[in-house]
Amino acid sequence: MTTGPDLADVSLPSRVAAPDEAVGADELGLAARNHGMPLELLRHDLTPVGAHYLLTHYDIPYVAEQTFRLDVGGAVRTPLSLDLAAIRDRPAVTMPVTLECAGNGRARFHPRPVSQPWLHEAVGTMAWTGTPLGPLLSEAGIDEDAVDVVFTGADHGIERGVEQDYARSLSVKAALDGDALLAWGCNGVDLPPQHGAPLRLVVPGWYGMASVKWLRSIKAVTEPFDGYQMRAYRMRQHSDEPGEALTLIAPRALMAPPGFPDFMSRTRVVRMGRHELEGRAWSGHGEITSVEVTVDSGATWLPAKLDTPSGPFAWRRWTLPWEVDSAGRWILSARAVDSTGRAQPTELNEQHWNRGGFANTSLQRVEVVVLG
Amino acid sequence: MTTGPDLADVSLPSRVAAPDEAVGADELGLAARNHGMPLELLRHDLTPVGAHYLLTHYDIPYVAEQTFRLDVGGAVRTPLSLDLAAIRDRPAVTMPVTLECAGNGRARFHPRPVSQPWLHEAVGTMAWTGTPLGPLLSEAGIDEDAVDVVFTGADHGIERGVEQDYARSLSVKAALDGDALLAWGCNGVDLPPQHGAPLRLVVPGWYGMASVKWLRSIKAVTEPFDGYQMRAYRMRQHSDEPGEALTLIAPRALMAPPGFPDFMSRTRVVRMGRHELEGRAWSGHGEITSVEVTVDSGATWLPAKLDTPSGPFAWRRWTLPWEVDSAGRWILSARAVDSTGRAQPTELNEQHWNRGGFANTSLQRVEVVVLG
Repeated sequence: MTTGPDLADVSLPSRVAAPDEAVGADELGLAARNHGMPLELLRHDLTPVGAHYLLTHYDIPYVAEQTFRLDVGGAVRTPLSLDLAAIRDRPAVTMPVTLECAGNGRARFHPRPVSQPWLHEAVGTMAWTGTPLGPLLSEAGIDEDAVDVVFTGADHGIERGVEQDYARSLSVKAALDGDALLAWGCNGVDLPPQHGAPLRLVVPGWYGMASVKWLRSIKAVTEPFDGYQMRAYRMRQHSDEPGEALTLIAPRALMAPPGFPDFMSRTRVVRMGRHELEGRAWSGHGEITSVEVTVDSGATWLPAKLDTPSGPFAWRRWTLPWEVDSAGRWILSARAVDSTGRAQPTELNEQHWNRGGFANTSLQRVEVVVLG
Repeated sequence: MTTGPDLADVSLPSRVAAPDEAVGADELGLAARNHGMPLELLRHDLTPVGAHYLLTHYDIPYVAEQTFRLDVGGAVRTPLSLDLAAIRDRPAVTMPVTLECAGNGRARFHPRPVSQPWLHEAVGTMAWTGTPLGPLLSEAGIDEDAVDVVFTGADHGIERGVEQDYARSLSVKAALDGDALLAWGCNGVDLPPQHGAPLRLVVPGWYGMASVKWLRSIKAVTEPFDGYQMRAYRMRQHSDEPGEALTLIAPRALMAPPGFPDFMSRTRVVRMGRHELEGRAWSGHGEITSVEVTVDSGATWLPAKLDTPSGPFAWRRWTLPWEVDSAGRWILSARAVDSTGRAQPTELNEQHWNRGGFANTSLQRVEVVVLG
């Protein structure tokens, strides 16, 4: 036993696993707490409460509704302190929003950045209910010289040696003119504790790190906000470069795996006959305009049929009939393109590596065995 | 590419990891889908919907409420086929039930059985609403020569080479006289898809494998039921022995980790001062009668205060004030005893290994750093 430990003793710098290094106890600890959306639930327009992905940096805090206040301050004309009733009395909207963790796909990078080891499943779409952020900020009157608006949650912990309350910012323009909501409900129920009760930010189109949960304060600032989470969520090749900030979600398509699984390997078994492949595709940059599907391990790609989008920020359903007439092993996959021309990688083994393990839109690999 | 693969190509026998073997891609795949209850939620009497542990052997099936039928048949006088409305019209009860996966703790065994790699968190308590099973079976009239009642779900997959619908049995006596419910709700809402919608079995006091989800058939049989899941959930030292069936939950206490965590290591940081330790303890065999807590890595154990139980099948809250007055690193833990005298191991490093990785009630290790 030692005395006088400090934060550096409990919180190590970020690192990348050695080329063949297996998943460690720390990564398993995160995987056991946090959870993805089982991919068969891609069949649902709206992800059932409890099946949506969930990443909690620290602990899920307990925030009492009765004493809750949202403080809006900093470089504003009229600071506000609102209780939950005052917020819920404001004009409300409900909209389906696809949220995805910026780290989705991380554990599929080679080499693997060591953090929450997501495969493909850190995504979900719920119908979020709340009041638009912009009008509330307009009432507070953001000062002309403010540049950023900082959102701080009640969740507290340490990350890479830095003790902090989770905090992220948006530019004043994005906060005022964007589509962000102060949300108190999802899929028709009050927010559950793990999704940020009683109030959270939802920033449609952005990776999940922007949608601060357990929101307790909004502050306009006149210098660019450079908090820990703004420095962490950046695309870098090396730890000493500034990198590019993660913002909008890059396009991705996923498939609900056909057939039925083996418990342990999750390999899919499919019987011969006609199947309908289906899945969802989304992008924070624009509408999904194309999904292509391979049923022969990437040799050929077929255009999927796209359903009508259910909203500007919700995933889009795609389908493709599949006639299975020979036994064998195949890899199935799908790749998406959006209206801005942004696209997933075209090849099954292509990756665009970065040190934080972010925005890995490498193609899904659905291993399927057709029984003879 | 090969042709004509069979089930043995996609589904390997169960195995135990080599002594230093790290977590594999298959285990990570399961950990990303299935999820535990973040232990800070031990502060809640009832686990919020979506935060309760969830183990899905195969896929979450889609069962349409409109066409749903529960068939009750086999060795009965009056076979029944009931729609959901008929079931929900029956007498209803609501009761808090603690459910725990039989594999909770598996990944903490040395060596580690290779399967869903739970640490401590495969538990939860919800208030389940449904109709008692016994009276419904009495109406169907179970034949005198029936010995078991088999419950089959709509979830279909392969496990260790065996293709199956998930099925488990109870003895006729346990089914008729026990406390099992046919449940359609939890915590005041209809079952979400991932918890077995529209109808599931809940067997209070038993490990979770007995509580068949997506229930579609109940069948009385005159020979002992020996389905795959009955053979799998047994305590064995070697794969070739019959082993002992898992039934009631062994006693366990868990602590809501105090202080706040480091994101990656989950080590807890605690400031000097007064803290209240709290957690829950439960047993399927009887009431929890004692919880002891160590704050000095097992050197001494202090009795915790037990709250009044909230029901015969729900976990029991415990608390202990903790005055922190010196810096250092400690392991905190708790150990439970129930009214039958069954107890957790007494030592921090004690384990009662078995090949399936079941009922590992080895003591929790909450690593805490008190800053100097």
